[in-house]
Amino acid sequence: MTKRVYLFNEGNATMRDLLGGKGANLAEMTNIGLPVPPGFTITTATCNEFIKNNEQLPEGLWEDVIKALGSVETNMGKKLGDPSNPLLVSVRSGAKFSMPGMMDTVLNLGLNDETLKGVIACGGTERFAYDSYRRFIMMFSDIIFSGQYEKLGKHYFEVIFDGLKEKYNAKFDTEVNAEGLKELVVLYKNYFKEITGRDFPTDVFEQLRLAIEAVFKSWNNERAFIYRNREKIPHDLGTAVNVQTMVFGNMGDDCGTGVAFTRNAATGENKLFGEFLRNAQGEDVVAGVRTPSEISELAEEFPAIFKQFVEIANTLENHYRDMQDIEFTIQNGRLFILQCRNGKRTGVAAVKIAIDMVNEGLITKEEAIMRVEPMALEQLLHPRVNVPKEVKNIATGLSAGPGGASGFIAMDSAKAQEFKAQGKPALLVRKETNPDDLSGMLAAKGVLTSLGGRTSHAALIARQYGIPTVCGCNALKLDYDKREITISGKTYKEGEPLSIDGTLGYVYEGMFETEPVSMTGDFGTFMSWVDEFRKLGVRANADNPIHAAEAVRLGAEGIGLCRTEHMFLGDRAALVQEMILADDDETRELALAKLLPLQKEDFKGIYIAMEGRPVTIRLIDPPLHEFLPDHTTLAVDLAVLKATNPNSPEIPEKEKLLKKVNEYAEANPMLGLRGCRLSIYFPGIVNMQVGAIIGAACELKKEKGLVVIPEIMVPLVGSVSELSYLKKQLTEVAEKTMEKYGVIVDYKIGTMIEIPRAALTADEIAKEADFFSFGTNDLTQMGYGLSRDDAAKFLPLYTDKQIYKNDPTDTIDQKGVGRLMKICVEDAKAVKPSIKLGICGEHGGEPDSVKFCHKIGLTYVSCSPKRIPVAKLAAAQAAIENK
Amino acid sequence: MTKRVYLFNEGNATMRDLLGGKGANLAEMTNIGLPVPPGFTITTATCNEFIKNNEQLPEGLWEDVIKALGSVETNMGKKLGDPSNPLLVSVRSGAKFSMPGMMDTVLNLGLNDETLKGVIACGGTERFAYDSYRRFIMMFSDIIFSGQYEKLGKHYFEVIFDGLKEKYNAKFDTEVNAEGLKELVVLYKNYFKEITGRDFPTDVFEQLRLAIEAVFKSWNNERAFIYRNREKIPHDLGTAVNVQTMVFGNMGDDCGTGVAFTRNAATGENKLFGEFLRNAQGEDVVAGVRTPSEISELAEEFPAIFKQFVEIANTLENHYRDMQDIEFTIQNGRLFILQCRNGKRTGVAAVKIAIDMVNEGLITKEEAIMRVEPMALEQLLHPRVNVPKEVKNIATGLSAGPGGASGFIAMDSAKAQEFKAQGKPALLVRKETNPDDLSGMLAAKGVLTSLGGRTSHAALIARQYGIPTVCGCNALKLDYDKREITISGKTYKEGEPLSIDGTLGYVYEGMFETEPVSMTGDFGTFMSWVDEFRKLGVRANADNPIHAAEAVRLGAEGIGLCRTEHMFLGDRAALVQEMILADDDETRELALAKLLPLQKEDFKGIYIAMEGRPVTIRLIDPPLHEFLPDHTTLAVDLAVLKATNPNSPEIPEKEKLLKKVNEYAEANPMLGLRGCRLSIYFPGIVNMQVGAIIGAACELKKEKGLVVIPEIMVPLVGSVSELSYLKKQLTEVAEKTMEKYGVIVDYKIGTMIEIPRAALTADEIAKEADFFSFGTNDLTQMGYGLSRDDAAKFLPLYTDKQIYKNDPTDTIDQKGVGRLMKICVEDAKAVKPSIKLGICGEHGGEPDSVKFCHKIGLTYVSCSPKRIPVAKLAAAQAAIENK
Repeated sequence: MTKRVYLFNEGNATMRDLLGGKGANLAEMTNIGLPVPPGFTITTATCNEFIKNNEQLPEGLWEDVIKALGSVETNMGKKLGDPSNPLLVSVRSGAKFSMPGMMDTVLNLGLNDETLKGVIACGGTERFAYDSYRRFIMMFSDIIFSGQYEKLGKHYFEVIFDGLKEKYNAKFDTEVNAEGLKELVVLYKNYFKEITGRDFPTDVFEQLRLAIEAVFKSWNNERAFIYRNREKIPHDLGTAVNVQTMVFGNMGDDCGTGVAFTRNAATGENKLFGEFLRNAQGEDVVAGVRTPSEISELAEEFPAIFKQFVEIANTLENHYRDMQDIEFTIQNGRLFILQCRNGKRTGVAAVKIAIDMVNEGLITKEEAIMRVEPMALEQLLHPRVNVPKEVKNIATGLSAGPGGASGFIAMDSAKAQEFKAQGKPALLVRKETNPDDLSGMLAAKGVLTSLGGRTSHAALIARQYGIPTVCGCNALKLDYDKREITISGKTYKEGEPLSIDGTLGYVYEGMFETEPVSMTGDFGTFMSWVDEFRKLGVRANADNPIHAAEAVRLGAEGIGLCRTEHMFLGDRAALVQEMILADDDETRELALAKLLPLQKEDFKGIYIAMEGRPVTIRLIDPPLHEFLPDHTTLAVDLAVLKATNPNSPEIPEKEKLLKKVNEYAEANPMLGLRGCRLSIYFPGIVNMQVGAIIGAACELKKEKGLVVIPEIMVPLVGSVSELSYLKKQLTEVAEKTMEKYGVIVDYKIGTMIEIPRAALTADEIAKEADFFSFGTNDLTQMGYGLSRDDAAKFLPLYTDKQIYKNDPTDTIDQKGVGRLMKICVEDAKAVKPSIKLGICGEHGGEPDSVKFCHKIGLTYVSCSPKRIPVAKLAAAQAAIENK
Repeated sequence: MTKRVYLFNEGNATMRDLLGGKGANLAEMTNIGLPVPPGFTITTATCNEFIKNNEQLPEGLWEDVIKALGSVETNMGKKLGDPSNPLLVSVRSGAKFSMPGMMDTVLNLGLNDETLKGVIACGGTERFAYDSYRRFIMMFSDIIFSGQYEKLGKHYFEVIFDGLKEKYNAKFDTEVNAEGLKELVVLYKNYFKEITGRDFPTDVFEQLRLAIEAVFKSWNNERAFIYRNREKIPHDLGTAVNVQTMVFGNMGDDCGTGVAFTRNAATGENKLFGEFLRNAQGEDVVAGVRTPSEISELAEEFPAIFKQFVEIANTLENHYRDMQDIEFTIQNGRLFILQCRNGKRTGVAAVKIAIDMVNEGLITKEEAIMRVEPMALEQLLHPRVNVPKEVKNIATGLSAGPGGASGFIAMDSAKAQEFKAQGKPALLVRKETNPDDLSGMLAAKGVLTSLGGRTSHAALIARQYGIPTVCGCNALKLDYDKREITISGKTYKEGEPLSIDGTLGYVYEGMFETEPVSMTGDFGTFMSWVDEFRKLGVRANADNPIHAAEAVRLGAEGIGLCRTEHMFLGDRAALVQEMILADDDETRELALAKLLPLQKEDFKGIYIAMEGRPVTIRLIDPPLHEFLPDHTTLAVDLAVLKATNPNSPEIPEKEKLLKKVNEYAEANPMLGLRGCRLSIYFPGIVNMQVGAIIGAACELKKEKGLVVIPEIMVPLVGSVSELSYLKKQLTEVAEKTMEKYGVIVDYKIGTMIEIPRAALTADEIAKEADFFSFGTNDLTQMGYGLSRDDAAKFLPLYTDKQIYKNDPTDTIDQKGVGRLMKICVEDAKAVKPSIKLGICGEHGGEPDSVKFCHKIGLTYVSCSPKRIPVAKLAAAQAAIENK
C-alpha cells in the first residue's frame, strides 16, 4: 500500500508533489541537521483520497497517524494528552505551491483542562498556559465548527475577550493577567456549549482527527479555489497536512518569533531582511498587535541566536541555492526553524539576486535565467509611483495597465486634454471608456475606471499604448454632473490629485513621484545573458515612430506588426470618410491620393526609427463601418430631426449618410467584409498603402542610403487564392512605384494566419507567402467561436465555474488553437522550409505562449514594446528547458 | 515527345481526358466500324501548352497536323486545297466535359474560289457550293476576326444577306438561287476587305491554322469561363480540337441531318427519340429555320437509312451500356455518324432508364445506382408546374427553392394569408423577404423575389420548408403602393395569376396544373436498390410533426436535427419575451412553466410521427436578442416619441424594454451568448426543454407503450467542460422528470461539433458524449471566419474571380473544414469506437458532402425531408465507389 504518512526524517526537498512545499522543506531541513521541531506529514495524495471518499479519512490512515505520532512522542519524551508531560502540536496545511493564508491551521492542539496542568508543570507559566488554551479554543472552534455554527467564528470570541478586557481595564491582550485568561477560558467554553449544545472537545485524539479533516477540507474552500484560479494552480493537487511539535515564542522574554529573507526581497541586496517580535507567537506578527523589530536588532537582543540564525540562513541559501524565506521561533533561548521556502521577491530583486548569485558562483547563467519570472520584468519597465510605506491605498481595482501614475482628476477627455495643454498631469477617471475617449486616454498619465474587466476597452488600450490603468474599481462612484468622484465614501473634485499603481491595481490619494525606466546596470546585464540563450527572435508591435523608437530601445529586432488603420484616424478621419462615402471612383481616387503622402511619411518615420531592421506592415484590416458614424445614433438623430423639423436642410445629407452606413453595417463584423476581403472588394486602399510602403522605402534609399526591406502582410487570408490574387495586384503597384522612383527595393509579401482554414491549408498558402504571422487574437476567437467583445458577459461565469481554466484570450489554448498552429507550422515547413514564421497577437508577449511558440518552431514573436524583455526571457527559458 | 495529334483510329473511349469527350467517342465509333467521317484530334494537353505559350501553337505541332491531315487525305482520296478534288473539313472544340455551344466551331473549311470549282466538279450543285462558301466566309470571319474587328460579327453578314434577299424577293435562305448566293459571296468578300483592308484568306492551310488557334482560344472566352464556374468544371482542363472530313446534309433531297436519343430523354421510355431535317446542315436544326420532323418519320422517308440508324443506335447503346445522344448526317443517301455521347436526361428518365437497363440485363444494379445524379432525384419529389411546351417563360431568376407553383400574386404576407383563407392559392411576390414574411411564405404556394441570392432569407426558408421559390429575378419590379408588379415591361396587378418553376428559376404568366409527388413505381424500386448498397444512415431535419411525417414517408431513419427555437415563435413569442424580460427569477420561472406543457406537446407530436425512430433534439441555440424587437427600431421609436410627446405614458416602458434589448445586443452575435453558453448563463430554458423532452417520452410510454429514445443535443460546445457541466445539470432534470412520472426512459446526451476547437479537442469531448453531430453551417463559417449573412456582399465577386471555386456554404470544403471533420472523427473513434457520428448542417443533403461523410466514416447524415432520397443515393454511390 502507498505510504500516506512521512516522518520529517523520511522525506526530502524533492518530494514537493507528495509532501507539499512546507512538508518537503521541513524534511529536508531535518535531514541536514537544522533545529526543526519533530513532526510528520500526511501526503497530498491522501487529501485527494479524502475528497473522493466523501470527506472521510481513508481506511488505515488513522493507524498510520498514531504510529507516526508515537515516533514523535518518543523523540520528544512527551505524549499527546499526557496530563503530566503533554505534547502540543500544530496542524498545518501545505500544498505543492504556496497558498499563503488560504487554508486552515490549528495551533496548540492537545490542550484540555488536564494537559493544561501538565504544561504548567513542565515549566510554562500559568499565564502562558491559559493564553495558549484560550487561543486554542478560539482557533479550533473557528476552524472546525464555524462552518456548521456561524456564531463560532473568530469574531464572536474576540467580542467576548473585548468585554473581558473592558472589565479588566486592559487595552492589549498582554495586559490581561493569568486570572483574567482563566476566566476567559471558562467564558469561551460556556459560549461553545451554549451555541453547540455540547462540551468543547477534550479528547485530544478527537481534536487531532478533526483538525486533520479540517485542513483537508480547507483545500476546497472558496477563497482557496479563487486563489488557485487566479494563480493558475490546478485544483486536483490536494494539500498535505503537517503535524508538528509546538514550540512557543510566547513563554517569556527569552522567547520570540520572526520571519526573515536571506536577501532583501524588495531590492535584492545581499543582506538579511525581515523582522522579529520578542515574547510572541507567529500570529501576533501577522496581526500587527505590536510593531516588530528589524531582524538586524536580533544581533543585539539575542547575539548567540543571531549568529546561529545567520549560519542557518547561509546554510539554507547555499543548500537551496536560492534566496530563502525562513520562519523561526525562539523558545526559552533556543532557536527553532519552522519553515523555509524560496522567498518571493520583486522583479527588481529577482534580477539582482540572480546576477549576484552567478557572480558569487552559486548558480549558473542558465539557472539565473530560469529564476526570474518573465512577467516580473514588467516591473522594471514601467514607471512606479514612489508611495511611502506608511501610505495605504484607498481602493483596489484590476491591474489592467501596469505602471504608476499621479495626476489631477479629469472626468472626460476634454478635461484631460485641457490639463495636458496646461502642462498639468491628468488622471482620466471614467465609469468605463469607449473609442471616443482615446484622445483623453492618450493625453492622461493614467486611467481609472469603475467598471470593466481586464479585457475591457480601457484595458486593451492601456496595454496597447502602455498607459497605467486600473479598471473595475468597485469602490469608485462617479457623478459626472457634479464633476466629482467618491471613493469609499470620500469625495474628490475634478482637478484634485490622485494616484494609481496599475501594476498592483491600487488607488492612492494625492500625488507621488514616479520612478522612470532604465535598461542599464543589472537589467542590461541580465538581458545580455537572456540574448545568449534564446533562439526565438523578438519583434515589437508598433504603429508609429515613437513606439518604434521605444521598441528599439527595449531591444526589438524588428517590427512584427505595424497596424495601418491607426493611420486613418485623428485628423485623417475626414479624408477616410470622404473616400468611403465617395459616389464615384474619381472622388474616391482623389481622397486616396491625398492620403498617400501622409501614409508615406508615417512609414518613413517608422523605417528611420527602426534603422534598417525588418518592418512587417499589415494592410488595412477593420471593416469600413468602423470609420463611419454609429448606425443607431444616426438613425435616431435623423428620425428625431424629421419628427421635429421636417424641413431641415440637413435631412437629405443625413439620409444619404445613413444609407451608406446601412450599406456597410454587418450582422457579424468580425466575420464580414474586412481584411483581405476588403482589399479585394475595394482595391484602392491597399494599392495606396503599398504605394506608400514602397515609396517610403524608395525615398529613404535615395535620400539617406537607408536600406529597408518592407514586409507587406495581408490580413485575414482563408484561402490561398485570396493571397495569390492580391499578391499579383500589389506586386504591380510595387513595381510601378519603384519604376517611378528609379529605385529597386527588396520587399516581401506574406500573410497573417488568423483564420482556422488558413492554418488547415498552410501547405497551399505557404507556397505563395514569404512569411506567416499568427494572429492568435482572431485565431482564438474563431477557433473558439467566441467574440471577445461579447464574451465579457459570460467569461467571468465560465472561469468561476472552471468551465474555462483560463481566459483563452490570455494565453494560447495549446490543446485547440495551438494544435491548429502546430498543423500549420508542420505543413508550411514541409513545402517551404525557409518560410519565416511569427506571431503578432497579444499572446506574443505572454510567457507561456512564447514558450509554446519556441516549441513549435516559430522564427519570432512580436509583442508590445514593453513586453519585449518579458518575451525574450520566456524565449531564453524555453530554449534552456528544451535543450 | 508526347503525342499531340491522334487519328480517330488511334484513340478510344477511355481517352476523354486527352481527346475530350467528342474526340474519344469519334475514335471509339471509328474503331467499332461505324460510318464516321475520318479525321483527327489535337489533344487537350496541347491546348494547355498553347495557353502557356502566350497563345502560340507549340513548336512541332503544325508538322504533326499536316501529317495527320495527309493520312485523312489518303483515306478520302481528296486533298485540302486541291482545286480538282478538294477535302473540306470541320474544326470543332471538344472538352472532357460537354460545354454545349460555349466554344468555337468552323465548318466547311478549305473553301476558296479555286476549291469551290472542285466541289462542283465532284458532284456538288453550284447552289450547294456557293451556299457552303457563304456560310464559311461568315462563320470564319465571325470566329477568327470579330474579336479584332467587331464589324465582322455574324450579325453584320446577316444584314447583308437580308438586303440581298429583299432584292431577290426571298423570304427564306432556300429561296435564294445559285446566282444570288454567288453575288452574296462577292458581297461578303468585299465587305471583309472593306473592314480589314485585306483579302479574305484563301490559303487553306492558313484557314486551318487560324481555326485551330481560334478553338484553343475559345477555351478561355468569357461565356465558357462562366459556364465552367456554374458547372464546377475545372478551368485547367483545356479543350481538344477535332478536325474532321465534312459531310453534307444539304446537298439535295437525298440528304439530311438530325439528332436522336436512343431512349426518351424526358420520360425514359425505351423508344428512339429525336428529330431530323431533310436537306439541311446541323446548324439549320439549331437555328429553327424549318421545323424538323420526328425521328420516327425517318422510317418512311429513308427506310434503309432508318434501319441502319436503329442498328447503329442499338450498337452504340449496347457498346456504351447507356442511353446515347447521336448526331448524324445523310449525304446523298449515305449515313454518317458525327457524334455520340451519353444522353442528358431528366431525373424521371434517369431512374426509368436505369431500372429498364437492369431489367434488360444491360447493366448491374450498382451501375444503375451510379447512373443517376443524386440531385436529379429532387425532380421526382417536387411538384412541377405542367407548362405546355409552347409557353415561354417571361423571366428568369435563381432556382432557390425547387418545385413549381401557380397562384395569385400577393404582395405581402397579409394578402397571402387572406388568399389562403379564401381557399385561393397565393404566390408571394416581394423585393426580398425577412423573418416577418414567414407567415406569408408558409401561406403561399410559392415565393418570387426580385433581390437576394441562393443564400438569402427567402432561399433559406424555401429550402427549409420546401417552398418553391425563385429569387433574384432582375426583370421583376415591384410597386407596393400601386399594388402591382412589372415584368419585362408588362404590368400585373395583385391578384392576377402567375406561376414559377423553382427548379429551373422560371417565371410564367397565368396558372397551370401541378403534378404531385409519388414515391411508388420506378422511384420506389430504385430507392430500394439504393438502400441495399448504402452504409450511411439517413435522417431528416424536422421541427414539427408534419415535417416528421413527411420525413418518414420519404424514408428517413430518424430525426437528426429537431430545432427547438421554432417552438418559441408564433403565439409563444409573447411568453418567450416575458421570460427574457423578467425582472426576477419568479416571473421567469412562471413564464417557463407556461412554456413547458406546450413544448411537451410539440415533442409528443414528433415522437408519434417518428414511430419510435431516434429523434435528436437540439436545445435552444440562437442568442436571446433574436426573440426581442430590433434595437435600432426601438431606439428610433423612443427618441421620436420623446421628441414629439415627452409626456407619453409609453416612454418608461419603452425605455425599460430598450435597456433590456441593449443588454442583450451583441457586436458579433454568431460568436456570442448562444448555444450552450446561453444554457450555462441562463439555465432555466434548457431545464424546461429537457423536462419537456423527457416528460413527453414518459407520457407516451405510459399512454401508448411507445418507446422513444430521445437524443438531447447540446449546441456550440467548444470545450469538454461545457458539455460536462450541462450534462450534470440536464441529467438531474431528466432523472427528476422520470421520477415524477414513475417511468424510466432511455435517453442520450450528445453535442454538435460546430466550433473548430470542438473538432480539435474531440478526444476529450467524445468521452462525455453519446454522439456527435457536425453542424457544418457554423463549422464552415467559423472555419472560414465568414458570416453567411455578411458574405453575400463579396461572395459573388469571389466566385466570379475564382477566388473561391465554390460557395463554401454549398458543399463541404474538404480541404479545410473537411480536414477538421476528419481529425475529429479519428480522435473521437480512438477514445470511443462506438460513438455515433452524424451531420446535420445543410451539407447533409448535398451529394458531394454526403460522399465525403461516408468516406470519413460518419454513422449518418441528416437533411431536409425532400433531400432524403438524394442523400440516400449519394450514400449508396459513395459505398459503391469506395468498395
